Amino acid sequence: MRYDTQARDEVKGAKVMIARKAVLSALGKWIGAHRKKPRGWTVGIEAEHLTVAERKRLADLLPSGLRLRNAPAMVERARMVKDDAELALIRTAVRLGATLFDRALEVLRPGVKEAEVAAEMEYTARRAGAEEMSFPTIIASGVRSALPHGRATQQAIAPGGFVVCDFGVILAGYCSDQTRTVWVGAGSGAKESGASGEEARHAYQSVKEAQAAAIAAVRPGVSVAEVDAAARRVLRKAGLGRYFTHSTGHGVGLEIHEAPRVAAAQKEVLQPGMVITIEPGVYFPGKWGVRIEDMVAVSEGGCEVLTPTSKEFLTI
Amino acid sequence: MRYDTQARDEVKGAKVMIARKAVLSALGKWIGAHRKKPRGWTVGIEAEHLTVAERKRLADLLPSGLRLRNAPAMVERARMVKDDAELALIRTAVRLGATLFDRALEVLRPGVKEAEVAAEMEYTARRAGAEEMSFPTIIASGVRSALPHGRATQQAIAPGGFVVCDFGVILAGYCSDQTRTVWVGAGSGAKESGASGEEARHAYQSVKEAQAAAIAAVRPGVSVAEVDAAARRVLRKAGLGRYFTHSTGHGVGLEIHEAPRVAAAQKEVLQPGMVITIEPGVYFPGKWGVRIEDMVAVSEGGCEVLTPTSKEFLTI
Repeated sequence: MRYDTQARDEVKGAKVMIARKAVLSALGKWIGAHRKKPRGWTVGIEAEHLTVAERKRLADLLPSGLRLRNAPAMVERARMVKDDAELALIRTAVRLGATLFDRALEVLRPGVKEAEVAAEMEYTARRAGAEEMSFPTIIASGVRSALPHGRATQQAIAPGGFVVCDFGVILAGYCSDQTRTVWVGAGSGAKESGASGEEARHAYQSVKEAQAAAIAAVRPGVSVAEVDAAARRVLRKAGLGRYFTHSTGHGVGLEIHEAPRVAAAQKEVLQPGMVITIEPGVYFPGKWGVRIEDMVAVSEGGCEVLTPTSKEFLTI
Repeated sequence: MRYDTQARDEVKGAKVMIARKAVLSALGKWIGAHRKKPRGWTVGIEAEHLTVAERKRLADLLPSGLRLRNAPAMVERARMVKDDAELALIRTAVRLGATLFDRALEVLRPGVKEAEVAAEMEYTARRAGAEEMSFPTIIASGVRSALPHGRATQQAIAPGGFVVCDFGVILAGYCSDQTRTVWVGAGSGAKESGASGEEARHAYQSVKEAQAAAIAAVRPGVSVAEVDAAARRVLRKAGLGRYFTHSTGHGVGLEIHEAPRVAAAQKEVLQPGMVITIEPGVYFPGKWGVRIEDMVAVSEGGCEVLTPTSKEFLTI
């Protein structure tokens, strides 16, 4: 297998074993064959990733006297900080991802189904070389925009509401993640300046400011909780604090959700090379929602906003 | 939430709890509040689906004195047999899925990238209303056709080899799964009748016969091991037994891989309403591979082949 050589070249300080099938059984055998050590071994497992059944199968395969213990999340921690080669790949993935929104704007209009918009975006991604989408594309229109995870449905986009577009690609293994929210006009300019239009614009501008405040807070040495607080502070001042019902962001890399979580209770401190999303949003159930999301890379002096797309209020 | 009512209507003999977040914590509280029963409760967990860390969080949330035990795979077993409404949805998903191959045949030719073929198929799926693909689309050309899981890459399809197309959609929650393999001619008819062409045709016809033999074996009361053996017998007689390196099939439903596995060591006995794939294949590493896959539903008298696509040897 062509990855054998590469793995052995690149992985330092660890033994590389390639097992095509029956990974646990290969591991059990290897441990059994190598335990002639002065003292008994302890085998560390990744408790967040191993199922209870897998743990039992592994325990049954091991020679007696060996202990299984939950290891700290070493792989997650190592993956939090990206090296330059990874950052280059992530930048490319984010740029490709951003072109999907350009395509969305070409097709998004009243009467078009959410799934049709998603279809065009995903087709663009594939044609541009993306391996796949990094998660099911969210095109949430009308009252569905108030659902933070409103996957594209057969619902036709109706005039007079927000459409939340949250999407990402996987390119060369790395994920992109981006959200933009556009206002679909009521047509003929009728209600645009009404009370509902004012309220929508206020919510949008507040989310945009909250997102900017969180980005401004991103730099080495700052905790993720402080970044989260920066976004939350702006929305609270705008009277929208209680409508911001999720955390401010998350790490992104080979997986769409990686450490750290950018949330109030988290203690992680930002370091150069971390790549996180900044995605505050407000959601009025039964009415509409707004979310704006960029990916940023923590740099020595602050951060680099990777997502190139405009965040101005956009009416279609 | 609109699913609350539906869940309470449709789920019999069980309590329905809707927890948007923190499912384990809601469950822990509920169990704590309801344990004033004569004897101590035992809480059954799904060991194949709960991680070691989730099990620990649940255990920590429960009142002391409660035991956690691995429950049998009740949900998997219940889901193996589909009711008529489910079968109707599966038929629709399979028919939609099959149209993707028609599209593939329109675009698949030497020089076109595997990923471009996948792009057209996935676009067709989305436009026709599919929620998403049921797994990453496999378009494996040239030597890559010998990889049973060769996801579409940027490789251009070269003349003179097989292209394995394995793909599926999710429609109304239910998955389709289908594989067809086509021969891409060497152009100008030159090598078509050479030794390599003969060998390819022999392999294809043998896989086709093995697939037919396995389908012919599908009926209530027959074990999945017997179905697997029926396919394997044909390939062994054709001198290809050792190139058939995976199991014959698997259940399909809400998930792309469900019980039962159609494999030699499995004891499950077929019942009306089970839906399985029949997908023998042969793989010559460094050369090429062939796989043919249909979905079938076990009926009272035998089985219904759900996949409508021709299995004749096709040269492009």
